[in-house]
Amino acid sequence: LEAEIITIGDEILIGQTIDTNSAWLAKKFNAIGIALSQIRSVKDEEEAIKSALESVDRRNIPITILTGGLGPTKDDITKKVLCQYFDTDLVMNQEVLARIEILFKAKGREMLDSNRNQALLPASCEVLHNELGTASGMLFQNEKRMIVSLPGVPYEMKNLFVNKLLPIVKNAFQLPVIYHKTIMTEGIGESFLVEKIKVWEDSLDRENIKIAYLPSPGIVRVRLSAFGSDFDTIKFIVDKKATELCEMVPSYVFGEDDISIEESIAQLLIKKNFTISTAESCTGGYLAHLLTSVAGSSAYFEGSIISYSNALKVNQLGVDATKINQFGAVSEAVVLQMAGGIRKKFHTDYALATSGVAGPDGGSEDKPVGTVWIALAGPNGVYARKYLFEKSRERNIRRSALAALSLLRRSIRGQLDHV
Amino acid sequence: LEAEIITIGDEILIGQTIDTNSAWLAKKFNAIGIALSQIRSVKDEEEAIKSALESVDRRNIPITILTGGLGPTKDDITKKVLCQYFDTDLVMNQEVLARIEILFKAKGREMLDSNRNQALLPASCEVLHNELGTASGMLFQNEKRMIVSLPGVPYEMKNLFVNKLLPIVKNAFQLPVIYHKTIMTEGIGESFLVEKIKVWEDSLDRENIKIAYLPSPGIVRVRLSAFGSDFDTIKFIVDKKATELCEMVPSYVFGEDDISIEESIAQLLIKKNFTISTAESCTGGYLAHLLTSVAGSSAYFEGSIISYSNALKVNQLGVDATKINQFGAVSEAVVLQMAGGIRKKFHTDYALATSGVAGPDGGSEDKPVGTVWIALAGPNGVYARKYLFEKSRERNIRRSALAALSLLRRSIRGQLDHV
Repeated sequence: LEAEIITIGDEILIGQTIDTNSAWLAKKFNAIGIALSQIRSVKDEEEAIKSALESVDRRNIPITILTGGLGPTKDDITKKVLCQYFDTDLVMNQEVLARIEILFKAKGREMLDSNRNQALLPASCEVLHNELGTASGMLFQNEKRMIVSLPGVPYEMKNLFVNKLLPIVKNAFQLPVIYHKTIMTEGIGESFLVEKIKVWEDSLDRENIKIAYLPSPGIVRVRLSAFGSDFDTIKFIVDKKATELCEMVPSYVFGEDDISIEESIAQLLIKKNFTISTAESCTGGYLAHLLTSVAGSSAYFEGSIISYSNALKVNQLGVDATKINQFGAVSEAVVLQMAGGIRKKFHTDYALATSGVAGPDGGSEDKPVGTVWIALAGPNGVYARKYLFEKSRERNIRRSALAALSLLRRSIRGQLDHV
Repeated sequence: LEAEIITIGDEILIGQTIDTNSAWLAKKFNAIGIALSQIRSVKDEEEAIKSALESVDRRNIPITILTGGLGPTKDDITKKVLCQYFDTDLVMNQEVLARIEILFKAKGREMLDSNRNQALLPASCEVLHNELGTASGMLFQNEKRMIVSLPGVPYEMKNLFVNKLLPIVKNAFQLPVIYHKTIMTEGIGESFLVEKIKVWEDSLDRENIKIAYLPSPGIVRVRLSAFGSDFDTIKFIVDKKATELCEMVPSYVFGEDDISIEESIAQLLIKKNFTISTAESCTGGYLAHLLTSVAGSSAYFEGSIISYSNALKVNQLGVDATKINQFGAVSEAVVLQMAGGIRKKFHTDYALATSGVAGPDGGSEDKPVGTVWIALAGPNGVYARKYLFEKSRERNIRRSALAALSLLRRSIRGQLDHV
């Protein structure tokens, strides 16, 4: 079964907006066994939209999703073009109008004609009611094909897709039974991981399981997928293989199904009832930000000291000034004292510390840009490790924070000998 | 002059990769007066690529950029399809081969046949030499039209586009003289800004200047553009109008030409030789992260205390426990003491403090999710302001940090009465 996406909006074609809706829709379709044959972005112009519609018609694409061009301003013409294309007229939808009126009342804003006109909808479409905004979804359907227009605002589009459209699609088409499981790994590069699990990977073929490696900086997601006729059967086989994978490389696996490292750490800390603090130099607060980006983080996160200056390392964290003079701020000795210092000061079970050369300046022959020391202090002692990351400041900050979380995770799970 | 983009790769159509290349290319084309008529993403399949090429042929699109599908693995077939389409053969390019060999030597990696085959290139194309990777750019050109294939890896694609392709495009086509200027504003919503500058905006028409409002959370970019025959003339007119705009709404303007708020703050702090520290509760380190994401931030950023727990607010920042009991941690009294406390402790010229309900939990009738107090302490006193942001934790954290930077900027520039 094939689907296609047409995103409508000048803002995409001048590069002002990155089209993230399409990737999101692609994932959702993929998960239910529908393959996208094409994604295209066209201008807010009658000819462009019509020509894209004619193209999917010509190729008999069963499902077409249009996003965007449904705003109240004059440049948004999708609705008008759809009326022409499907030879129908706009009629006032009283239910939609009532909802828009309530929305404006709640916000205490004046309602203009252009807002009221958002309730004018093509007579021949099925209206998909949008509870989060003024632009409704519109479903045009015949025996075998659907053309659906959704608003471009991501959270409105997503809500309409999941809650209104997906049930209709699942009902209208015979979808394959499909099951995915994603194992999240960190701390190992894609090619090294492939090498380590080669023999196991070969065994997937016999079970008709597909594997995909999805790398991003510091993280490789391994996705297993199977199609079949009975859900329980393919789930059983895929889960078994996923368990085998986890047992083969336990220290690299931090979770399942697109969980983030910070969420997996949060679960671990909450489960064990541990608290954490950080002392940050090169990460400059980004490590604390990751730890506190998870809802409910006050259960485990106590606080941090960001000590950019050496004076603060000495006065606030208890680092020996002599160590800084002797080894420099980016050194094992200093980062160990930072971690130990914050753990003691903030009375936490664990503490992480970072000190490195994030760049672009400040590198030397001994300590080039990307040199980072990370320390972990825990109930059983302190441990530090040196890393050499990249030339980009942004990536060094992110990779340092991920590496710190990785040390913490391994230590709590007993996979780190030292702490 | 029109251009079109075809991105090739299954990873885009399954939603694994968000196509950021197209938005980047769209901006670059836009800046030199070339409009994109369409962006489309197709699979790594012969038929799909061919059909996209036929479509641009049929419509006589002067410039077509293909990205992706140039890797060494079997699924990358762009090169093969281009050979068929342009009826030419692959020949070994010795210059490219030599460069690939050097690349592998430098990395100490073994070179496989598949890597060597990256130097096999269509005989009839002009090779665009890629110094950053093994996939070359390929330019197929006749009298009036260009079809260019570039690698999908963003930094390789960007380098080839700017350094190799752009000079050829500028030489081959008569491009309009164009000048853009972007004024960055924060702290005012798009519709309020439009209202404030309505009369001035009307005057742009007479000068043939186009205006575009580009909003993102907390920020509205205002871009002025003019086309003409003489660069100096249109630059003079646009710059004059931009200056008028800045003088009309001085407290909202933080810079020009896509500078970030944190970069503009950095320039201001360095220029005035001021230092800054932060005491963060709801922003959890994100404010410090923004301040330290700028290269050279050690010149002005001293450090931070992230005090998630009330105990740390009292012990580390000197907040009165009685104030927390009386007013709660999210209150004017507490956030003022946090800002004053960190400024004194870290001996900085300025200090920012945040305390709020980031959500999704923790809201009450009095203080719903999104309620945030932000304080600024400076040489002339302390000042606090209450905000009501959104329901999303991620956006509340970001908007709180931007609002804090906004207070700091206004204070330093003398636009805030209180500090």
